[in-house]
Parts: sequence; C-alpha cells; structure tokens
Amino acid sequence: MFYSDNVTRVCPEVWAAMQAVDRDDAIPYGGDAVTARLNERFSEFFEAPVRVFPVATGIAANALSLSLATPPHGTVLCHERAHIHTTECGAVEQWSGGARLTLLPGEHGRLDPAEVGAFLAAWNPARPQALRPAAVSLTQGTEAGTVYPLSRIAEIAGIARKYGLSLHMDGARFANALAALGCTPAELTWKAGVDVLSFGATKNGGMCADAVVVFRPELAEGAGQRRVRGGQLFSKMRYLSAQLEAMVSDGLCLSNARQANRMAKRLADGLAGVAGVTLAHPVEINEVFATLPDAAVAGLAREGIKLVPRPTKGGILYRLVCAWDTPAERVDRFIETVARFAKAA
Amino acid sequence: MFYSDNVTRVCPEVWAAMQAVDRDDAIPYGGDAVTARLNERFSEFFEAPVRVFPVATGIAANALSLSLATPPHGTVLCHERAHIHTTECGAVEQWSGGARLTLLPGEHGRLDPAEVGAFLAAWNPARPQALRPAAVSLTQGTEAGTVYPLSRIAEIAGIARKYGLSLHMDGARFANALAALGCTPAELTWKAGVDVLSFGATKNGGMCADAVVVFRPELAEGAGQRRVRGGQLFSKMRYLSAQLEAMVSDGLCLSNARQANRMAKRLADGLAGVAGVTLAHPVEINEVFATLPDAAVAGLAREGIKLVPRPTKGGILYRLVCAWDTPAERVDRFIETVARFAKAA
Amino acid sequence: MFYSDNVTRVCPEVWAAMQAVDRDDAIPYGGDAVTARLNERFSEFFEAPVRVFPVATGIAANALSLSLATPPHGTVLCHERAHIHTTECGAVEQWSGGARLTLLPGEHGRLDPAEVGAFLAAWNPARPQALRPAAVSLTQGTEAGTVYPLSRIAEIAGIARKYGLSLHMDGARFANALAALGCTPAELTWKAGVDVLSFGATKNGGMCADAVVVFRPELAEGAGQRRVRGGQLFSKMRYLSAQLEAMVSDGLCLSNARQANRMAKRLADGLAGVAGVTLAHPVEINEVFATLPDAAVAGLAREGIKLVPRPTKGGILYRLVCAWDTPAERVDRFIETVARFAKAA
Amino acid sequence: MFYSDNVTRVCPEVWAAMQAVDRDDAIPYGGDAVTARLNERFSEFFEAPVRVFPVATGIAANALSLSLATPPHGTVLCHERAHIHTTECGAVEQWSGGARLTLLPGEHGRLDPAEVGAFLAAWNPARPQALRPAAVSLTQGTEAGTVYPLSRIAEIAGIARKYGLSLHMDGARFANALAALGCTPAELTWKAGVDVLSFGATKNGGMCADAVVVFRPELAEGAGQRRVRGGQLFSKMRYLSAQLEAMVSDGLCLSNARQANRMAKRLADGLAGVAGVTLAHPVEINEVFATLPDAAVAGLAREGIKLVPRPTKGGILYRLVCAWDTPAERVDRFIETVARFAKAA
Repeated sequence: MFYSDNVTRVCPEVWAAMQAVDRDDAIPYGGDAVTARLNERFSEFFEAPVRVFPVATGIAANALSLSLATPPHGTVLCHERAHIHTTECGAVEQWSGGARLTLLPGEHGRLDPAEVGAFLAAWNPARPQALRPAAVSLTQGTEAGTVYPLSRIAEIAGIARKYGLSLHMDGARFANALAALGCTPAELTWKAGVDVLSFGATKNGGMCADAVVVFRPELAEGAGQRRVRGGQLFSKMRYLSAQLEAMVSDGLCLSNARQANRMAKRLADGLAGVAGVTLAHPVEINEVFATLPDAAVAGLAREGIKLVPRPTKGGILYRLVCAWDTPAERVDRFIETVARFAKAA
Repeated sequence: MFYSDNVTRVCPEVWAAMQAVDRDDAIPYGGDAVTARLNERFSEFFEAPVRVFPVATGIAANALSLSLATPPHGTVLCHERAHIHTTECGAVEQWSGGARLTLLPGEHGRLDPAEVGAFLAAWNPARPQALRPAAVSLTQGTEAGTVYPLSRIAEIAGIARKYGLSLHMDGARFANALAALGCTPAELTWKAGVDVLSFGATKNGGMCADAVVVFRPELAEGAGQRRVRGGQLFSKMRYLSAQLEAMVSDGLCLSNARQANRMAKRLADGLAGVAGVTLAHPVEINEVFATLPDAAVAGLAREGIKLVPRPTKGGILYRLVCAWDTPAERVDRFIETVARFAKAA
Repeated sequence: MFYSDNVTRVCPEVWAAMQAVDRDDAIPYGGDAVTARLNERFSEFFEAPVRVFPVATGIAANALSLSLATPPHGTVLCHERAHIHTTECGAVEQWSGGARLTLLPGEHGRLDPAEVGAFLAAWNPARPQALRPAAVSLTQGTEAGTVYPLSRIAEIAGIARKYGLSLHMDGARFANALAALGCTPAELTWKAGVDVLSFGATKNGGMCADAVVVFRPELAEGAGQRRVRGGQLFSKMRYLSAQLEAMVSDGLCLSNARQANRMAKRLADGLAGVAGVTLAHPVEINEVFATLPDAAVAGLAREGIKLVPRPTKGGILYRLVCAWDTPAERVDRFIETVARFAKAA
Repeated sequence: MFYSDNVTRVCPEVWAAMQAVDRDDAIPYGGDAVTARLNERFSEFFEAPVRVFPVATGIAANALSLSLATPPHGTVLCHERAHIHTTECGAVEQWSGGARLTLLPGEHGRLDPAEVGAFLAAWNPARPQALRPAAVSLTQGTEAGTVYPLSRIAEIAGIARKYGLSLHMDGARFANALAALGCTPAELTWKAGVDVLSFGATKNGGMCADAVVVFRPELAEGAGQRRVRGGQLFSKMRYLSAQLEAMVSDGLCLSNARQANRMAKRLADGLAGVAGVTLAHPVEINEVFATLPDAAVAGLAREGIKLVPRPTKGGILYRLVCAWDTPAERVDRFIETVARFAKAA
C-alpha cells in the first residue's frame, strides 16, 4: 500500500529502544536517563549544541517551534501548500496566541526566495496595521516530494535574517531530505541558517515521537512551559525519548529514509514507462505524485488498493508514498498492475 | 520507589495490544480498525453512547475537554489544588482561547458543593464584567488521594446544571476511584451528571495514552478539529488506541488500579503505626500523604530513596504513590525502614 | 485633501448629540438613557429587532462581530483585499482565540460567489485537519470603492447558509453603500441574509463610534462579555451612544454619505476627462482609485497635496476619498490642478 | 450622586481641547499634530522619555500594558480585588494570548510585599509546569480608596526586579493618588520602579481616553501592533490625544483630582460623625467605603439615591465616589440626609 508513510509498522530498533526503558524507577516528566542525555545525543548528531523537546506529533512540533519564533502579532511566511496551512487546523494560530500564516507561491512545493524577498521588501515596519513578519517556515522534504538544495535554504535564510525573521524547517521528512542530499544534518540545518527544526521520526519508523530541535539558544526561552501548556510533556517521557534516541543512533533514520527514497525512485522510474502516466514533480524523496490513466485507477480500486486523489488544475494527482519497510516486490507489483490496466484500456 | 505512579513500567497487556497493531497497512490518523471500534468499546464500558478522543497526556485530555465546555469568555470552577491549576502551565487558558480558572476551597482535595453554590449564587449574569461560569471541573480521585462519593458528584452536578454549567471530571486516576468506590463506570460518570471525562490510562499501566470521553453529544462539536490544532491527532493513532482499548478490556484498568490502591492502603496502615507519622488525608486511592519524622526523612535520603516534600501549613507533607506493579514486599520494606529510622532517632 | 474620510471634522449633529448627554448623573457602562434606547433606535432604523454594541473603532467592530461568528477552530472567508486581512494586524485572530482568514479573489473588491461556492464545495467536513468554515465577511462598500448589488449579497448569503456559515458585513462605509444603492437599511442587511454588521459612523462624520449590529439573536450570546474583555465597554458610554443615535436619526448618516458619494462622482467625472488618468474601478461610493500622470503626481507633491500610492500590477494607483464635508470647490480645484500639471507635461 | 466617578460630565478643558482639533486636514491613525507631540508632553510630565499609547478604556490600557509585560505562558501577580481580576472579563487573558492572573491578599486593597515575596520565593523556575511569573500589577489608588506609599511601591518593585518581573501600575485613579501623596508623577512611577502605567483620564474629567505609558523602552516593542489588533487604533486619534494632552497640561489632572479627593474627605469626615456609620478603609483618594445604618439605606432609596451594595464578611459596604465636579453642597446634603434617616430610626 502506498497510501502514506504513516501506514507502516514501527521499526525493530525503535521497539527495542522502547522496551529497554521499560523499568519501574524512572523519574517522570523527562527526569529519566534517556531524556537526560537526549540533548547530548542530538548535539552530536547535529555537531552543535542544541536543545531537544520531544513531542508526540508533527503538528505539535511545528506549532511549538513556531510559537517560539513569532509573537502573537507576528506572521509566519510559508508555502501556500505547507502542511502548517493545509493540514494542521490552525495549530500555529492556537499555540502562538493568534499569529497568522502568510502564504507564498513556489514551484514544486519549494518557497521561491524572490517571493519571500518581495514580500519583505514591501513590508513597512512603521505601519502597525501589518503583522510583524517573524519567521519563514520551509518544509524539507517538501509537500511535493522534492527537496530544497542547501544553497536555496541559505538564500532564504539570508533574506530572513536581513529582516529579523527566524527560519523554521518543518522536517517531518527530514531524514528523507538528508538521504536525498547526501549532506550532514549540520549542513542541512544550522549551517544553512535554520534556527529551529521540527524533526520527524514517526513517519520514518517511529511510533509517536517527533521533536523540536532549537539551534539558536534564545529561541528556547519558555519552550519548556509552552510544551507543558500545549499538552506535550509526557509523564512517561522515556518511551518517546527512546524512539528519538534510536533514530539518531547508528544511522537508523538515514538507513530507514534511504530505503523509502529508493523505493519511491523505483516506483517513479517504473511508472514513467507506463503510457498515460505523468509525474507531476521530480521524485527526490519518498513520494511520487502522478496522474494515472483512468483505467488504471478503476482497476486498482477493484483490487482494493486505496489511492488518495488530489484535484489540481492539471488533472487528478495521486500521491504514492514509500516507507522504511516498503519491499521492492510490492513496488514492482504495483507498477505491473498499473501497466496492465493501462494497457487493457 | 513511591515517587509517582508515572515511574513504572507499561503493563504486559498494553504492550501486547500495541504489538498486535504493528502492521503495515493501517489507514493513518485514526482510520485504522482499533480506533474505529474505540467509540463502541468505550460505550460498552460506560453503558452509554460516548465519543472517545485519544490524546497523549493528561494535560491534553483536560485542556481539550475544557475547551469543549467553555467559551473564551468563560470560567471553569475547580479546586484550588486542582492539577489544571497547579501543574498544567495554563493549558486550559491556551486551548480555550483565554478562559480562566476560578479557584474554590475544599477539604481533602474535594470541591465543597456549598462553595460552588455560593459562588454561582453571587454571580450576576447581567454583569458582563464577569466571566461566564461555564464548567465545574472535579478531580476523581483527588489530588489528596481521596474520592468524591457519588452523592457529592451528583450534588455538584445539580448545582452546575442549575446555572447552565457543564461538569468535567479529571480522571487521571479514574480507575483508582472506580476501584475505591466499587461502582460502575456509568455510575461514576454520566449517571452522576458528568458531561466530559479525562480518562487516564498512562498512570495506570499505559504508556502515553489518555482519552477525552464525551457523554453529552453536543459537547463533541468541533472536538475533532480542536484535537488537531492542539497537536493531538496521531498519524499512527492505532498505537494509542490499542492502549486505551486494552485498558477497558477484561477489567484491566480495574485490576491494575486495585493493586495500586491495595498497596497504598497497606502502606498507610503500616505507616500509621510508626510513631511520628501522621496521615494528612484519608487514603482512598493509591496515594498516601504523610508527615514523616525528620530522622526517617534523613535516613531515607541516605539510602537514595527520593521523596517529594510539599510544604503546608501543617508541616512538610510527603506524597507516596503506589502503582499497578508495586509489590507488597517493597511496601513492607519501606514501612520497616521508616520505622527503623524513626525509632533510632 | 482627499487622503481619507478619516481626516475630516466631526459633524455638527454629532457634536450636539455628545453635548446633550454631558450631565453628571448617568449610570456608567451603558446604564444611561441614550444607550438604553439604542437597541430600539437601531431596530427602527433596520425595521427589525436588533442588538447594538457600540465600539470605538471599525477594527473592534469587525473583530467583535467575527468573534461571535466563528469558533477558535473556524475560518472566515473574505476578499483577499479585505480590511480585516490587510489593515487590522490580526484582530480577528486575537478576538476569536485563533481563527483564520481564508482569502478569496474577486474583481473590483467584491467577493465572487463562484469562488465562495467552490471553496465550500471542496471543503470536507469529515476531515478535522481543515478549519471549519464559519463565516463569510464581505465589505460594503468595498475596498475598491464599489458596492455589492443586493442580489449578489443574497447569492453569497445563500451559499453561506447552505454550508452553515454566518454572513458578516464590514460596513465601515455602510451608509455610503446605502446611499449608492438607494435601498433601505433592512434590504441591505438582514433581508439580503446578513447576520451581523459592523456599522461605521466614524468615517461618516462621527468621532470615535462604530457599532456591532446583530440581526440573528443567537449570535449575540456572549457579546457583552466579549466586548468587555476586548476593552470596548466604555464607562462614559453615553458619549459613544449619542454619536450612534445621531447617525441613525433624521437621515443623518444618509445625507452625510450622499454628499461624500456625490463629490467622489464629481471627482471621478472630472478626472476621467484628463488625459493620462485612468479609473481602476467603477466609482460607486466615496472613493476614487486612479492612475495619474507622473507630471500630475509630481506637481501635486510640490503643492503639498499628500497622496497614498498603492503599487499594483497595472501601475501605481492613487486612492482619493471624499467625506461628508468635502466642498465641491475643493473637488473642482483638484481636478483643475491635475489637468494643469498633466497638460504642462 | 456618588455612584461612581464615571457618572460625571467631561470637564471644560477637555471639551475645549477636543474642539480645537476639529479640523478637516489631519492625517488619521495618529499622524496628526497633537498625537505627534504626545510622547513629548508626557515625557515632560513624567520627567523622562516615555512612549504613550492612547486607548479608549481603562480595560484596554491594562490589557495592552500587561500584554507587553507577560508572554502567553506567564502569570501576572495582582491583588485579589484588583480590577483586572474582578471587572475586566478576562481581558488580560485575551490580549496576552492566554496568560493567567495570580491573586494575592493584602489589607485595604494594597498588595502585601511579603506575600509577593513569598510567592516568588516558592516559585521553582526549573519546573515548567508552573507559569512564569512575569509581572506584578498594582493599583494606585487602590480599589479600596487607599494609596500605596512610595516606599511600598519601591519595595514591591525591588522584589519584582529580583525575580525578573516587570511592574505595572493600574492608574485608573493615578491623578487622585498623585494628589494624595503630593509627589511628582516621576516619583510615583519610574523613580519607584514602575515599568508601565495605565494612565487614567476618563474618570477624572475625560470622555473616552486613557493611555498606556511605557517607561522601559524594550516593553514598547510590538505595542503599536498589539494596539491595532486590540481594536484601539483610532482613525480620528486626535480627539483622544487631545483629551490626554489636556490632562497633563496646566495641572488639569491634578486640580480635578484634588477636588474629588477633597470632597471624599469631606464626605468621610461627615459620615464618621453619624452614629451607625463605619468607614471600612482609610479615605485617601476620592472613594469612601462605609457601612450605613439600615434606616439610612432605606431612606436614601426612597429619595431615589442609588447606592451600590457590596456584601463583605463585615456586613454590606457602600462605595461612595466623588468626582472632579462634585460640589460641596451635595456632599453636605448627603451627610445630612444620612444623619437624618439614621437618627429617625
């Protein structure tokens, strides 16, 4: 099934890490040993001193991150298809105390630095009727299955910094982008100008743990309290911290992501050879966006394969997502099925 | 260790339930089979049609519950020692869009119906300078280790209803109260007038799952969206739903709670026989609040046993909490240790 | 000066009304005689029982209105150039507890019913990741100096009602629209489906008084308290109520608006005859949006006449606004000045 | 009538100032000449560079002030009878994005420094479950008709500063306190440690203008935007600025307040001589809080004199307030009336 990378199992390393903390003498609310060393583990992973705040969902990670980066009277610039706009039901608005998202266009899910620059150039700080631009949020990998090259992140970061904005990265698929770009976690974040990251683990073999990673220390001011009031301080924190620790240990997040990316590539390559299939975006991480022949869609439905249609101006797009445990056979079978139905039509 | 009921392991039945859903074909965000039957399972447990919303923490359960029960210009009446006031860093304020808690006194952690009644009688609805009393929140079992008898809940519910308020129950230790009172879940909730419940599982052998249970259907309006924006919609929801389903299956929550309560009783009985120990509250669930002789405190500290002091007007109280897996031997050893140090002084 | 309709004096009738309430025995906070009869006066004006809530600014009127019409997890559909989006610094977000504006396009400042309908048709109520569409807000007269014909308001109201949304009208220039359409206040509001109105008085000869007018009684629930917490309950309320009463008495708001509209028409007609001047929108109320020849802009600047440039894709637009007290001579002189500079170029 | 200092007229100097700005060429939204010099005028008045933000109500002044001084996860310490708690319907909660008031006791309406100190000493900054104490708000003159001596303000300021809190003064009756203490505005505010002031003008002969005065520049960050979104940026700002300018010119606020205070003193002295009358608090500004003999209350009611009863543990208190225009004859007549009815009983 290519419905989502959320449909899959928890990977064995994460299970093992959770079971390893199953003891009866841990100080709750993050006073345990795993949580205690999490800042250190992530600091090693990112080659810089960071503060890590485990949360249970990507929405919470984004909302907590952005509540640190914008005052209630601020606005967060993001892509018009950003998850924080389309899928999080106003979480940023709630957690920030009433800030606003400003939507900007950009091809293949990527914010266009020129659009960011133009918006900020037009902003008049002396006019209190306008919300204060406070942060840029970019999604890496994007909602279109692409990645931002490091240079583009740095370019956006430069513009943001010029106007006093923070840079947030929604990294629900951070490891997939990392795998795609072949760079280090440091290069992908603070070295490129990222101030705060939503680090995704759940989609990548975790169970219910993502994290806010703060690179600029002053942004962590009040983060502890904001996490509590957001309902994200876990009494048995260690079961979440263990998932996160596992993810940044022994290259796990990278190896999981690589498999997912590889399978998406295989899927894209296979589908590209089927008449009537068009790929809407470059396939750079673990997602394929394709139009499919009607006959194939109908045939798949008859076989009980669930697809999510997304109406666009260019026709109906289908999102196909591979995960850390997607087997090559399933990919090949899917391609073959699509081809068969397409041909039969 | 009696530090908290959060220090303990996840119980085997919950582990098993989580592993049983570890498959790669579940629709995410609650589209899975376990979540789909959760309303039904809880409706059986409560003998009434209920709506269940899994969340990851007790804070989130309370904040989501109360956001359904109060408008931004409302106030929630609660005990002055209620968890929502002392320990949740303004979660109700955030989730409700700026509502306020009104603190009322009451012996042994229980709201006094007379205080609730007096406050509401003094409220003048025609005076818009006052926040609208919108809900009463009571904690069952209480923060003092006691329970509300059913009659008192019904009495408070009657007062609340008279003035148009909803009744919320913070049931972080709901099963402990259930075990203590020997009544049915239905009797403890909607039959007594409860409209919305924070159902606790985490402290009672769960990992990271509590739930909002809505008894009055109109309160569930918008609950789905509020949960999303609160950051509590889980992509891999089934791992949380499974914990909750396990809790209400085969009497698990009750048997776990009974063991915790029994051990607290044993602990209280043993300590009561030690010279210099005073119990501050009746021990009705799994918590003991006691003053201890200085020599015992010092001795325990030397042995590495961590206690949480709570300064009160009557001296320093220590909270001792038993859990689903507290063995009798540990209780007896603790009593013996306290007695030994107390005697040696 | 045509800088804004806010640059002008308070009209004599409003001064007189304020002075008439200057006594030393009024019950504060709206307990006075003028405020007491305000609901009745406005009910006569609108030929229906309404609830009126005086506020001091148009922003407050919009924010209070919309806070009645949307829950925190709701979204308000409005034109992409709506004042609530461009000029109110997130007031709706703050007053509602975190709701969001959804921006829709439309020619000449008017929402396009087709766009509203398409957005709502695409909305999936079963998907809690999306904010609940809760209200449509339209601006009458618009930010482009045009008006909605009654039929279009009714059309939008019909779509809104179909999906359970309320209809709000930002009537900062309500009287100007009324004058333009030649209909009754009832026809322009509740008869066309409007549920709540921001009634503007300040721009139309008032000093510091606008009002929220509620046509659907259940929307007024909690309005009193929301007004207090918004900081809009005036101790000496009568000085604001008197302004509002004056406005709906003896046709004042209408006669003031007629003069403003007439002068804008005269201005538009005059400018239309000047080579190099283009009118961007039909001139239907008291605002003219025009491109001006560079020579005229430069010349006006030399004469100390302040214009507000608004960069658009079609070039730089200048907004010229007439007010209740704009004399015809000033209009003619301005036209003559522009013509002179344009010709000289 | 002694119902409130809000029942009275606008004083002649304020009327004159408003009429003086009644021209048709002012830049709106504070771009006018009076508003432009307001910072300077207030800086002279306070002998220090300040930032002034006119608002229309005392509630708005308090809410805006405190929104500058506390993050959403902060708490504001105030007297348990503070206006921000009893009478503003959660304005601080709304404007701050969800902060909380912490109520502390204190005799005669004054915060007790020992209580403030004890609360802060017990606060554990390492415990994120507690809201961050962010500001102390004191009311000068108090809700009990008393004043804080300068030394007590300084003492509270010292404690606040020690823990990193800002100090806010609710000066709805600031001028009355100034008159009572005979000190300078500077001594009463920044010299004593006040960071931000709600400067009241409305109760003291104004119409609808109070102001936020910021002494610590960094607190003014974002104040402009917060004022807009709060609905307190006035298009015809000059009519409010003029009221405020008048108040700090030629000693007006002081002379108005002196008359009010004098009349309250006269009233208190007279009532003190009537058998059965008890004064609840020292009478230091323009408010008298007294118990009255039943016969007097009944008699006054028969004569149509409206009194506001306030039930307290020590019996029913009546608040009697004098204003800038209260004539001595009215005071004497009231005393005589009370005495007559009391005697007749």
